[in-house]
Amino acid sequence: MTVSSRVRRLLPVTDWLLNYRRAYLADDVTAGLITAILLIPQGMAYAMLAGLPPEVGLYASILPPIVYALLGTSRPLSVGPVSVAALLVANALSNVGFTPGDPQYLNDALLLAAMTGGILLLMAVLKLGVLVNFLGHPVLSGFTSGAAVLIIISQLPQLTGIPLPESVSSIEALAFFMLELGQAHAPTLVFGVLSVAVLLTLKTPIGFTLRRLGASAGAAELASRTVPLITLTIATFSAWAFELPALGLAVVGHIPAGMPNLGLGFLDAERAIDLLPAAILIALIGYVESVSVAKVLAYRRRQRIRNNQELIALGGANIAAAVSGGMPVAGGFSRSMVNYAAGARTQLATLVAVVVVALAAMFFTPLFYYLPQTVLAAIIVVAVMPLIDWRGLKRTWRYDKADAAAFLATFFGVLVVDIETGLILGVMVAVGTFLWRSSRPHVAEVGRLPGTEQFRNVCRHETQTWPNLLLLRVDRSLFFANISHVEDLVAETAAERPELQHLVLICSAVNAIDHSAVESLEQLVESLREAGVTLHLAEVKGPVLDRLQRSHLLARLRPGRVFLSAEDAVNTLDRAADDSS
Amino acid sequence: MTVSSRVRRLLPVTDWLLNYRRAYLADDVTAGLITAILLIPQGMAYAMLAGLPPEVGLYASILPPIVYALLGTSRPLSVGPVSVAALLVANALSNVGFTPGDPQYLNDALLLAAMTGGILLLMAVLKLGVLVNFLGHPVLSGFTSGAAVLIIISQLPQLTGIPLPESVSSIEALAFFMLELGQAHAPTLVFGVLSVAVLLTLKTPIGFTLRRLGASAGAAELASRTVPLITLTIATFSAWAFELPALGLAVVGHIPAGMPNLGLGFLDAERAIDLLPAAILIALIGYVESVSVAKVLAYRRRQRIRNNQELIALGGANIAAAVSGGMPVAGGFSRSMVNYAAGARTQLATLVAVVVVALAAMFFTPLFYYLPQTVLAAIIVVAVMPLIDWRGLKRTWRYDKADAAAFLATFFGVLVVDIETGLILGVMVAVGTFLWRSSRPHVAEVGRLPGTEQFRNVCRHETQTWPNLLLLRVDRSLFFANISHVEDLVAETAAERPELQHLVLICSAVNAIDHSAVESLEQLVESLREAGVTLHLAEVKGPVLDRLQRSHLLARLRPGRVFLSAEDAVNTLDRAADDSS
Repeated sequence: MTVSSRVRRLLPVTDWLLNYRRAYLADDVTAGLITAILLIPQGMAYAMLAGLPPEVGLYASILPPIVYALLGTSRPLSVGPVSVAALLVANALSNVGFTPGDPQYLNDALLLAAMTGGILLLMAVLKLGVLVNFLGHPVLSGFTSGAAVLIIISQLPQLTGIPLPESVSSIEALAFFMLELGQAHAPTLVFGVLSVAVLLTLKTPIGFTLRRLGASAGAAELASRTVPLITLTIATFSAWAFELPALGLAVVGHIPAGMPNLGLGFLDAERAIDLLPAAILIALIGYVESVSVAKVLAYRRRQRIRNNQELIALGGANIAAAVSGGMPVAGGFSRSMVNYAAGARTQLATLVAVVVVALAAMFFTPLFYYLPQTVLAAIIVVAVMPLIDWRGLKRTWRYDKADAAAFLATFFGVLVVDIETGLILGVMVAVGTFLWRSSRPHVAEVGRLPGTEQFRNVCRHETQTWPNLLLLRVDRSLFFANISHVEDLVAETAAERPELQHLVLICSAVNAIDHSAVESLEQLVESLREAGVTLHLAEVKGPVLDRLQRSHLLARLRPGRVFLSAEDAVNTLDRAADDSS
Repeated sequence: MTVSSRVRRLLPVTDWLLNYRRAYLADDVTAGLITAILLIPQGMAYAMLAGLPPEVGLYASILPPIVYALLGTSRPLSVGPVSVAALLVANALSNVGFTPGDPQYLNDALLLAAMTGGILLLMAVLKLGVLVNFLGHPVLSGFTSGAAVLIIISQLPQLTGIPLPESVSSIEALAFFMLELGQAHAPTLVFGVLSVAVLLTLKTPIGFTLRRLGASAGAAELASRTVPLITLTIATFSAWAFELPALGLAVVGHIPAGMPNLGLGFLDAERAIDLLPAAILIALIGYVESVSVAKVLAYRRRQRIRNNQELIALGGANIAAAVSGGMPVAGGFSRSMVNYAAGARTQLATLVAVVVVALAAMFFTPLFYYLPQTVLAAIIVVAVMPLIDWRGLKRTWRYDKADAAAFLATFFGVLVVDIETGLILGVMVAVGTFLWRSSRPHVAEVGRLPGTEQFRNVCRHETQTWPNLLLLRVDRSLFFANISHVEDLVAETAAERPELQHLVLICSAVNAIDHSAVESLEQLVESLREAGVTLHLAEVKGPVLDRLQRSHLLARLRPGRVFLSAEDAVNTLDRAADDSS
């Protein structure tokens, strides 16, 4: 690889910057503005979801996206605070026994971001991107669905003005709020519920109407995206005008204006050890979310996402977050969809958004003083609702109950026990069912489709068979969990056929044979031989055959043979039988 | 099923009893006598290995084998006390904080036997026999090898006369004895080492010589099997003659003569809860050992073992053990091999052996008073040595490093940490490597072997290919852990071929497609279409296709098609291309 091409691989920004088209500019700028309007309140909201001061969310929306713009391989992906990561942060810090407000609390949040970044870079070095493949779709959507519900529950105190009792499970909390709803703080509840209603109802309609009125997609998008901003403005204004804080309505209050000051003051080896598990979880989940969003968007424009480069980019972004006083970040689903739908062509859109957010952080924070926290809570609730993936669950259920079980195990695990348990539970169910299935393989007797060289299941097709010759196709790799099942099955089938002389195992679907299986097959050869039946193999895959050379099986097999194809086996053995008879 | 046939299924004894041949009688009687000679000392030895009084081992060799003879499907299998189960008992009871001699200790041993029996019967009802398949050969032989070493270490106090310091790990114990060997009690050490030497050296040779001198296999067997008895007799005699107990040589001492008195006095709900995990482990391990021994022996005489009936038989045997004051039992490897090699035809041999053991328990226990414990220890050591399966490890290593890793993980887990951890560790390694392999499937480009309808890997065979048409054979079931790997691979291969119009995934080796995979394939279809490539499937297995009908994939595929065979795909698509060009 030439130096320049190596640079281009490490700095994907060059890809789009060097061949940037003027035509993109307008799209990118509009998209940037639209996204920014969403990012400012969302950033503050997610910070508060994580139990952090609102500005931390804004800071996390400045430097990290810039770093990602330089290193990331996705053009529309928008990196910053995301709901699930925020939840994980809150969860981790309360686990290690801190309460929001505690100075150590913010410190640990930054430390978490730095560690998340470090872990992602480590994964990049060790090429561990593949690890996340072990989280299947059902587990993932079960997880995000559960997390979304947790997040909504976590916002009930802000929405109702009822403080949450100390250390209760999410289920208990839900029950608690249902019972205590009467004690809700009226103004808070009204503001909260109203905002949720407005955000839910007006979001799409506006876009639709405008587009039907002939507005450009971008403009319509812009309009519909301004709904949160308008809601926010009205709420803030009335909170100020009617001095609602005096009535006990919680507002955001003073946010220090200005840029974050960079530093490494958060580093603390001892705390790091306590936070390691949480950091690993945040890194994994953040990476999976980002990459899956990035891939979906890349497909649509034939761009390719390089898993390992994404690890580097997200790692860098998180370290940037820590250094600039921000919370852990990831490529968010909603923010990226907005950015993409608003027409973002390249990461330039992100950079435009960054400028807007930075301006807000520097000059406009006083405007947020009277912003009711209940409205931010409403924004969060509306933002995470789409993450509850009932349709996905229904699709999965229709296709495969076991996959649906993995979804439900994760979902309820997250809700009833805790996030880690839920995830582990889901993975165990997924792996368990996979093993269970592999342990009961489908073994089909096959015959020849007349006039062809095709061999098919005798139960599904009209085929030619032979009395002295049995062709069994094993539809699984042979390994410890299924070999004895196959063994018993073969022995029984053989026992049922008095005239049987030759039994051919067709291995076209056998992709691996582990040593447990080899040893059992050696025994099977013996027992069949004593029963007067010779075992043969056919259509053994190259890699499998290479490995079998290293065992005694092929020697034990004789006079049994390994045929290239079922066709060869039939021709040879059938003729042999004729001669002998 | 008729009543009588149902009875025959539940009482396999009828199988051999109803068509018993006079010719068998001589064989069965000799075999019974030979086995009994082994069982008496071994029974006492394993009882003491479990920390129990010697008679408990004798009691466990009387009623349980009778029950198995009635219910078991194996004819030569000999059920009774076995080394590994004895170790597990000792391990379990010391874990719950009892010390041998404690009256509660014996009580708990019987309780363990009863629970083991109950669990096995429960497994039979739930048809859970298949569970044990998840213990692959490498894990199993790693486990027994580790257990054997533990057993040998556990016998060092009896062999050296040095008391083992309280609660040390097996490794520490080993080191301790190496250092303290100087402090060994001379007479004990001499008797122990001598017996080991005699047992090791004389075992086989005698048999060989006699057979070379023309003695019948049975007689030679009988002679070689008497070696332990002779050693025992000489040792006991000299211990008595020279009053060695006065010199501090530990002897078995008084064993109450008579038959065990039946009873359920051991039942205790509270203790049962503490002992549950241990009982489950003993049930699983005991069942696996018994069934694998039974299968090996059954193969040789074309008899079939019914897993579920074995669960019932072993369950009954263990409950019988508990009721008759015996320790947990299983089908032992060494005892069964002896029984088989001595020519046992049916369970009648076991019944003969039972009579002899019963007589010994009733009348001859005084003879064992002066039997040195160190000699029993020697018998144990010699009996378990063959369980250390280095040759198996070497074979496994040559065939597959990963399987060998599972062996080693289990072996060292058992030795260094503890039995349960070792087993769990081994299973995790085995499952982990299996998943890891499945996650990096082999995807081969295939072409047609000229003049045939066979399609083979283009790298391994001289084949015909097409510029506009790419045939990829996926050599794995598609599921969450490998789909994104396959996806990336296909996308890249497609990207490398400008002329490509049709891409055919040959699924002859795809035995299942889970929902994660379906969703990813739907995305793949879209992205390829936008890249101007149509995706097709071929040789999709019936069960897989049935399931795919329930998803949107086949709809999304269009105009892509599902071909019955690669041949059809080539004929159709190649022609189509010609027309279009």
